[in-house]
Amino acid sequence: MRLEKVTQNHAKQHNKRLVLKTIFDNTADISRADVARETGLTRATVSSAVAELMDEGLVGEMGLAPSGGGKPPTRLQVVPSARHLIGVDLANDQLQGSVYDLNGRALHHIAIPTTAATGDEVLEQVYDLLDQLLHLAHAPVLGIGLGTPGLLDAETGFIHTAVNLNWHNLPLRHLLETRYNLPAYVVNDTQAAALAEYIYGFGRHESDLVVVKAGRGISAGIVLAGQLYHGRTRSGASEIGHMRVVDGGELCTCGRFGCLETVASNRAVLRWARHMAQTQPNSTLSPFRTHPDDLTLEAVWQACAAGDTTLHPMVEQIGRHLGQSIANLVTTLNAPLIVLAGDITHFGPLLQEEVTREVHGRILPTLADQTTIALSTLGQESVMRGAAALLLTHELGVV
Amino acid sequence: MRLEKVTQNHAKQHNKRLVLKTIFDNTADISRADVARETGLTRATVSSAVAELMDEGLVGEMGLAPSGGGKPPTRLQVVPSARHLIGVDLANDQLQGSVYDLNGRALHHIAIPTTAATGDEVLEQVYDLLDQLLHLAHAPVLGIGLGTPGLLDAETGFIHTAVNLNWHNLPLRHLLETRYNLPAYVVNDTQAAALAEYIYGFGRHESDLVVVKAGRGISAGIVLAGQLYHGRTRSGASEIGHMRVVDGGELCTCGRFGCLETVASNRAVLRWARHMAQTQPNSTLSPFRTHPDDLTLEAVWQACAAGDTTLHPMVEQIGRHLGQSIANLVTTLNAPLIVLAGDITHFGPLLQEEVTREVHGRILPTLADQTTIALSTLGQESVMRGAAALLLTHELGVV
Repeated sequence: MRLEKVTQNHAKQHNKRLVLKTIFDNTADISRADVARETGLTRATVSSAVAELMDEGLVGEMGLAPSGGGKPPTRLQVVPSARHLIGVDLANDQLQGSVYDLNGRALHHIAIPTTAATGDEVLEQVYDLLDQLLHLAHAPVLGIGLGTPGLLDAETGFIHTAVNLNWHNLPLRHLLETRYNLPAYVVNDTQAAALAEYIYGFGRHESDLVVVKAGRGISAGIVLAGQLYHGRTRSGASEIGHMRVVDGGELCTCGRFGCLETVASNRAVLRWARHMAQTQPNSTLSPFRTHPDDLTLEAVWQACAAGDTTLHPMVEQIGRHLGQSIANLVTTLNAPLIVLAGDITHFGPLLQEEVTREVHGRILPTLADQTTIALSTLGQESVMRGAAALLLTHELGVV
Repeated sequence: MRLEKVTQNHAKQHNKRLVLKTIFDNTADISRADVARETGLTRATVSSAVAELMDEGLVGEMGLAPSGGGKPPTRLQVVPSARHLIGVDLANDQLQGSVYDLNGRALHHIAIPTTAATGDEVLEQVYDLLDQLLHLAHAPVLGIGLGTPGLLDAETGFIHTAVNLNWHNLPLRHLLETRYNLPAYVVNDTQAAALAEYIYGFGRHESDLVVVKAGRGISAGIVLAGQLYHGRTRSGASEIGHMRVVDGGELCTCGRFGCLETVASNRAVLRWARHMAQTQPNSTLSPFRTHPDDLTLEAVWQACAAGDTTLHPMVEQIGRHLGQSIANLVTTLNAPLIVLAGDITHFGPLLQEEVTREVHGRILPTLADQTTIALSTLGQESVMRGAAALLLTHELGVV
């Protein structure tokens, strides 16, 4: 239990944040008296905090609320356009970022194909992306949030290794803060997705959840009691892609055998789909049988969405293996909500059902009753939105 | 992020706790000036807090410290005998409890064989145990901490089911607080063991650890950032005994197949040892071959400790299966320290080596470098000590 010195100034800042958070959380309008009632603060304290927040442009008066007699109270709201947030996603084959308002609404979006070869060149591209985004922002920018694959320290924003980006020992947070003179936060992309799910997705009513993001790699981001879990090593996401799920299985990129990624990543999907294209004449993918290497993931997802049942055994198999690892997660954490995210969501309800069946079959019945497996509804934007939301947490204290 | 109203009185209490914690954490003596330096509080605030703590008998002046010139400072210490703590362990075939001082030193210990049949009778025996312990305490008692197997809500101390004790829907915390007019805390026995390990055992320098307790059942207690992790369901321990580790394995008590408990619990040990006694003429257990049911766990542990190598394949097999589940825990939580506890520790370093080998073979090398598997050194006392330590956390705020 960490205790810190409490000073009057600390208390004042704390109370101001509490007032802002209370107004932020109220999607309906709220008056000063309501805030005082909800927080237990005195009317005078609330009024003084609101005055400061209005000076800063963060809170506005939105007209009068219905009165129960007497002078009608003034309604308060957070002004969504008062600050802008930058959210960046480096997890895919392109670098992308968006400018968000305080409600998490995307105002501008930019994507840059990664043509860079060296780590320095990738960094230059990230700067280029950020330069453009900051140019587009037309309100004071709270800071930069960035979700990236790789092994990193979320507290210091130091990247140990990000293989796909050719980064090793890169003090990314420090570089960004120095260059832009803005607060910057760097987390694993799956953690960013987990935060997005907690704030904007299925987690809105769930303070404990795990996002399992499967695509090129597979990892899990964990929110416990409404906070991102960074782990002791602060490296962020749980590397469940490297849980062994097949004894005597195939060689994995990590050098060991039978990891979840060998049977449920994009690479595994492509391998199986190409095999099916060559061997299943009934498959809608059979036109690729002479040139299986031309078969893309997009074509596989489309075939599945179009109802190609020859793909079902593959999806069911992926679901079972994912379910195997997720059952271990659920048993360890008692997490009531698991959200499937990333490319894997293209396999839709069929995958969701198979994962659910496998998880429920592997955990205690009392736990199964409390465990929901959902498909993310946030789509490709989740890492960017979650990364931007880091600023709501760290700079405003409202999430 | 939860924010609460900060009042001046809150701040005063907070600062007093901080002063007590600072004195408590300093095993060497500490002066008022040292406390002020460490906490950042003013000398006046520290002096006033110390005066209150001395009035309450919790802190004492222990003579003068060496001076660097001028008036030598007075050394402060927590008075270990100022309060007593009651810790109770209901996890085994007997009910046992101890009276502890504030340093976690056991002053009195009582064990009662469980002769009771009904849940009400067990409760009467618990009352009997507590009556005796409270009679032995000769300082003001801070409260009662209790570790029990079963499914419970650690926040309310409500027992949903504790099969071995025949308890169902028992508001144990409420019953104890009403009967004894003392604060009471109820947690899962493995969580109590985890807290003990964090405060008194291997966790003294490790704020994130998992205790895996294997004996009659198998479960895990988790400490994250120095706090017991209760999980969303607040049921406490992770039921890793019911992770599936053998596909197509044996029927478990939970009604499913191939759970860890079917291959690594006391029941599995006895079954295998009896089989070996009947089939291995070289085994030191072979005298039991005509009456295998007479073979006890104690005899198996003794044979193993005495160097009976015919038992090694069994211990190695148990180690591999435990390692399989622990690897999943480590991958999920990035926990740097796993402590093996409970009856399983009778298999000593052989088991520890096998678990370590299996875990390290199943997790990413970067994670393996940071992961230690240890054998608990706290012995049979860990649940009682951990349960008692709940009072240091909740009533004094020093842990």
